[in-house]
Order: sequence, then structure tokens, then C-alpha cells
Amino acid sequence: MTRTLNKNLPENLGQTVKIAGWVEVRRDHGKLIFLDVRDRSGTVQVVITPKATEALETAKQLRAQWVVEVEGEVKARPENMRTDGPLGSIEVVVQTVNVLSEAQELPFEVETDVNIDTRLDYLPLTLRSQRGRDIFTLQATIVNAYGEALRKREFVEYQSPVLVGSDAEGGAAAFTVDYYYDQKAYLATSPQLYKQIMVGPFERAFTIAKVFRGEKHATTRHLSELTQMDFEMGFVNDHLDVMNVLEEVVRDVVRIVCERHADILSRFNAENPLTPEKFPILKLSEVQKILGASDAPDLEPEQERSICEWAKREHASDFVFVTHFPTKKRAFYTYEDPSEAPYSRGFDLLFRGLEINSGSQRIHDYDMLVARMEERGLDPEKFSFYLQAFKYGLPPHGGCSTGLERFTARMLELPNVKEASAFPRDMTRVDARLSE
Amino acid sequence: MTRTLNKNLPENLGQTVKIAGWVEVRRDHGKLIFLDVRDRSGTVQVVITPKATEALETAKQLRAQWVVEVEGEVKARPENMRTDGPLGSIEVVVQTVNVLSEAQELPFEVETDVNIDTRLDYLPLTLRSQRGRDIFTLQATIVNAYGEALRKREFVEYQSPVLVGSDAEGGAAAFTVDYYYDQKAYLATSPQLYKQIMVGPFERAFTIAKVFRGEKHATTRHLSELTQMDFEMGFVNDHLDVMNVLEEVVRDVVRIVCERHADILSRFNAENPLTPEKFPILKLSEVQKILGASDAPDLEPEQERSICEWAKREHASDFVFVTHFPTKKRAFYTYEDPSEAPYSRGFDLLFRGLEINSGSQRIHDYDMLVARMEERGLDPEKFSFYLQAFKYGLPPHGGCSTGLERFTARMLELPNVKEASAFPRDMTRVDARLSE
Repeated sequence: MTRTLNKNLPENLGQTVKIAGWVEVRRDHGKLIFLDVRDRSGTVQVVITPKATEALETAKQLRAQWVVEVEGEVKARPENMRTDGPLGSIEVVVQTVNVLSEAQELPFEVETDVNIDTRLDYLPLTLRSQRGRDIFTLQATIVNAYGEALRKREFVEYQSPVLVGSDAEGGAAAFTVDYYYDQKAYLATSPQLYKQIMVGPFERAFTIAKVFRGEKHATTRHLSELTQMDFEMGFVNDHLDVMNVLEEVVRDVVRIVCERHADILSRFNAENPLTPEKFPILKLSEVQKILGASDAPDLEPEQERSICEWAKREHASDFVFVTHFPTKKRAFYTYEDPSEAPYSRGFDLLFRGLEINSGSQRIHDYDMLVARMEERGLDPEKFSFYLQAFKYGLPPHGGCSTGLERFTARMLELPNVKEASAFPRDMTRVDARLSE
Repeated sequence: MTRTLNKNLPENLGQTVKIAGWVEVRRDHGKLIFLDVRDRSGTVQVVITPKATEALETAKQLRAQWVVEVEGEVKARPENMRTDGPLGSIEVVVQTVNVLSEAQELPFEVETDVNIDTRLDYLPLTLRSQRGRDIFTLQATIVNAYGEALRKREFVEYQSPVLVGSDAEGGAAAFTVDYYYDQKAYLATSPQLYKQIMVGPFERAFTIAKVFRGEKHATTRHLSELTQMDFEMGFVNDHLDVMNVLEEVVRDVVRIVCERHADILSRFNAENPLTPEKFPILKLSEVQKILGASDAPDLEPEQERSICEWAKREHASDFVFVTHFPTKKRAFYTYEDPSEAPYSRGFDLLFRGLEINSGSQRIHDYDMLVARMEERGLDPEKFSFYLQAFKYGLPPHGGCSTGLERFTARMLELPNVKEASAFPRDMTRVDARLSE
């Protein structure tokens, strides 16, 4: 008999079927045993009655996370025993139970709300919880919707490299790799230089890329390995062109996630993000004026939260753009705003209190870029591969980078970004905790 | 005036438009200058006549890869001057030319058929060639079509980690990373262990993942950084269930690529791959019998080519599965075929002479897996994170891994897989050539 997925059981009422999945819960009522059996499509109640003698014997051994194959008849549950949900009014009355895989005793029940460290110690188990499945189901939709939104706008996806020849931006601490023959390579801190190169062939390019940050940060916002969703586009007038595309893309992603995952958002008590007609745009100096803050060159996390509260209150927006940070505080390739020097055509997009995207118009002129590198103490010789893109003609362009884990975390209002990485790496952990 | 893309010019016949792009060729006829201007949508001829005095002066300086913005009128080309292609019967007669970006003198013309080393030395330039754009346009379609094919079959995408705690498979040489506080981490040689863990929450999971191989191979088939398209699925009967899904996915990808990129395939003189009703499946021993070869534990590259020629001749197929390699030659988690010991339920998929995919049914029983590790001299303690997935109940499952660069290379019949990586890394190169 071929397997029927749980979600298809209602249309098989009265039929004998085979289902397969994980035992979530076993309720032993002596003569009757009830199981909740989860497969990828849903969870259904299974009933083993004394008529199924052998099955009852088998069912007595079953515990949470055992994997079973069950044959039985799909029946309507008594009116007073129905529960909510698409499978709440049926059950499978068992003829045979076959154990596909046993499970040892669990350290805790899968749905237990354990603390973050325990959650991460037991990821192969905790990822199976409703919470774990929800987070990464929704994350998969974000990635796909982001790609679709860009493909629709004629961006071409490319695979950006992880191994790079030098710590390109000279800023974020790059991890070192032992390459061949005692040579060193580094892990990319950003796909930046490559996506700029890709403007040459494609004008519009995007990548879903792994990046690595060796900074010694132990916060709820930092990871050592992240997934970035980056795009870069040629023939822009300024940073506003990039922000327009980003805003459209974010709007598409949010809409699709909300349409598809209302159930998940509701389980997290997360509201649909507020996306007004136009996301508010503020210069850094305007933010500081609104908050009555001093004119520091960047925003503190607390200020990011405050200005987001302001945007929500004043503009009914969960998103707010901040532009015109001082050029010297941004990456070397950032274009200075000629009419607003020393401020740049760079921007951050904040979402519910957190920066989830950073971007800018870039310098496209070869001589200007080399001069900027020299100002920053970077050796243009080390960037000769990258600089070819400019030497051989690159249009005015710009782009930006969205942190997938941060975006996911803010969509679901997770307290810690580590929960939004399936296998988070940080200072103290690569799967297992590192020895001190 | 807003920019018009070249592809939209025919519908603007008689109108004044603004276009922007790269000068591909300048033909100076003294009184008349012709330019071929490429943007992301196509290449169009631009004519500068003596009437546009200023534009003519500017145009005299223009060289290949300069980036320009041109205003002018879209006109029909004289009958006898028309060329093939969608833009071959129009031209833009210039009013103004504005230089957006200059280019230095090129080391060679972009369309020159340079050797592979020169091609790679000048990637930021050579990626702009028709060949470069074609390869990565088609590759983007492969990635997207692969994902679509799996999403359609209820696979959930996840982001697999690059940084891992140990060289999991103990086979392929893993690169070492200096992690925090003098600790070592490694670059993943495969997403294998993580996608098996993901069977727990999702039954069906896939990932587009970077993997790294520190092997000292300098061939036309090897890269040090690769993109793998991996999937893993629960509740299989055996490896044939995995092969069925893979075959369907490959069929979807090939169909979409051929539909969308007939022009690219034709520029590479690449035929549409032959995909018969059913891909032929041979055991290793059957392959060896057909080829009159000895019973070695694996196939030599030359044998892979020969059996593909056989499959094409005998089954009109560009694909052939080879199964039942000796278990001891496959990764530790490979399931032995109980009725065919010591041969395994592992398989390779060969495409036009090259292995592009490798997969198997996996061991799902915790005790059996631990025993296998011990047989292989692997320390189960080091795999304790991974082993949780088995300790807490995993169904019979299997999966496989397709090399994106190899698949791309065989679709286009490229002689060297390095051409199918936008930024290839190997023993001698990370962007620039490494010093010896």
C-alpha cells in the first residue's frame, strides 16, 4: 500500500490507508492507546483498540519520536472529541503498527520551552518542535520570495565566493583559512566586491551568500556565520533608486510571507508588519533631532529601537530608512553625497528596532576609488582583481545587503537572532559548545 | 527622460528615447560613427551623424567598454543594412551622448577567445563577453529550476553551515579555519550531516550550499570551492525512491533550461540533453561487463565517458545511473544493500561522461551507524551532535548531491568546469594567481 500524507486523510474517510511519521504523544488508556502521529503535512490522531491485538502490544512500547508506519481506517471522530485544525475531526483506527525507527528517551519533551542554550545543544531534536519547524518554514519562504522579487525585476542570481584572497573591507575581522602550500586565504565578510563586478555582465545581480564575521561580539544580534541576501544594480541616479527597489522587494516578501504563513505568525503572536505606501526616510541628523540625541556618527541599538517606535507611531510603519551617515564611517566604496559632504549616499533599513539591511550608491569611477582606498590606508595593489571592473568601465551603481537571520527574527519577533539560524555559529559554539 | 531598455526600442519606433549601456564596438566612418551599445536586455546600433556636432566630438573619444547614456530617435535601418536578431532592423540616431564612465585600453577585445588562464585573470572583463554572460545566465536558471522542482515536491530549503567542527566525512581533505581563541574549525566538505538532521523536522529538505575540497587535484573536473545542490528525503524504501525524485528534478531542470535558453545552447553548439522515458540504471558490475573492464571498486574517468557513450547509443540517453558500488568505497553513512552485500544502495548519476550527482539510501538506525563509524575508525563522540538525529528517531531516508558547476559545464559542453564557476578557486588561484 502506498503512503497517504496526513493532510490527505479527510478525503479518504472510510478508506483503509497507510500513514507514516513520528509519534508526538502517546496516551495510554489501558484498553485504548492514542497516538499523535506527525508527518510533514500535519499531525493526526491514531487509535489502537483491543481488536488490533498485535498493534496494541507494539503500541505499548512506543514513545515520543519513534517513527512508525500505521495501517488503519480513516474515521470521523465523535462530535464531542473533535479538535480545531484541518485534521481535528478525523482519526485513524489502527489495523497494524510497524516501527521504522526507535528513539531513546528524550532529555525533555520536544515542545518544552527550553532556554536558548539548551535549545541549541539539542538542535537535531528541538528543530522538530512546532517552533523550530515554523521558523525555518517561514525562512525558506523569505529566501524564495526575495529571489522571485528580484528575478521579476531582471536581476540575475550568481554564486558568490566564500574563500577570498584578503580581508577586502579591512573592517570586519575576517577568519583565516589554511590554503594550499602554507598560503593563507580568508572567509568573505561580504559578497560586496563580487556583486559589483557582476554589474559589468548583468547590470542587475543578486546572491544569497554566506558571510563570516570574526568579531568578538556576544549579543542577541550577532552571528559568526550569516546568510546575506545581496543585490547590486547599475545605472542608478543615486541611493534612492536602490532604496526604491529594496522597498518593493521587502514589500513583496512581507506580503507573501503574511499570505502564506498567517498560522505561523499567529503562533508567534507576531503582527503582520506595517508597510505604508512609502517607508519613511530620515537623514541621520533628522533621526538625532527627533530623538534629541547628540550628533554621533552612527546609531546606538537603543536609538534604532526608539526611531522605529517613532516611525510606527507617526507613520504606521514597521520599517524606516536612515540615510546620510558620515562617509568616513561607511565602507570605502561608499559614494559621498556631493551636495551633503561629508555625508554619504549610504542607508540602513531598520525593521522593528533592528538594522536588517545596509546599502549605498557606490563609487564607480576608477580614479576616485583608488584615491579613496589610499585615503583609508588600503593597498590598491591587493584589490587589482576587483579594480579591473572599474578600469574597464562600470556605470553608476548601488546595492544593499539584507541579513536573512535578522529579517526572519524580526518577522517573528524572536528575542535572539541565533534562533533564526538553523545551525548558528558564534564565539562559543559550532554545533556543540566549544571547550573554553 | 527615463531610460528605455534596448529590448523595448522596437515599440518606440519614431520616438526620442534615452538608452544607456556599454560601448561594445565603435566603427568610425569619418563623417558617421556607429556604436554597438549593450545593456542587460540586448545590443543596439547607434548612429552619430554630423548633425549632432557635440555628440560626434564625444563619440570620437569612445572606446570599447566605455559606459554611455545616449538620447536619440529610434529609426528603421535601411533594408540592406539589417541584421538578424530582435534589434537588427532598428538603430538609434543620436542627438546627445553622455559619458557615464570611461574605460582604459583593454588587454584584448572582450569577445576574443582567450585561453582559460587569461580568461580567469581578467574575469571582471571576460564575464562581460557573450560567453560569460551566457554561462551564468543559464546557471542561474539551473539553480532556480532545481529549487522550483523540489519546492513543488514539498521539500523545504534550509541554509547549511560552512563552518563545521570537524572534517565530518574524514575523507575529502578539509580546509582548516582559525576560529576564536586558538580553536580550529573546518570548512564543510558537504552539507550531508545537516541535511540528514533536517529530515527530522521536514522529512524533505534541500539546500544550495558551498562546499570546499582541499584535495590536491589540478584537473578540468575539480574546484576547491563548489556549489552543491543537495536534497534529502525521509520514508524511502530504498535508493530507487531517491533516484526517482532526482530523475524527475533533472528532467524538470533540463526542460526549463532548454525552453528558456535555446539561443545560448545554440551559441555553444550544445544539443538539448537526451532524456528518455526512463534513465538507464546499471550496477557497477554491469557497467564493467559492458565495458569489458576488471571489477575495480570505482569507475575511472575514461570508463565514465565510455558508459555514457554506450547509454547514448543504446538508450538514447545523455544520463545513466550507476548503482551498487562497494559499501567500503562509499561514505560511512551509506546503506548496504542487504541482498547484495558487500555492495551498497549508493548511486552516481553520469551526464555526458561526467559524474554530476552522487547519492544513496543512508543508514537510519543509531546503533548500526555508530558501529559503522567505529569500523571506519571514526570517533562517534566527535559526531555526537549529528548522532542526536538518530538517537531520537529518524526514518529510512536517502538523498543526493548535484554539483552545480559540473551540471552547468555538461549542459553547455564546456571543456573545463572552472569556466562554470563565476569566481573559481583552485590550487593556484583565488581570483588572482597565487604566488608560487
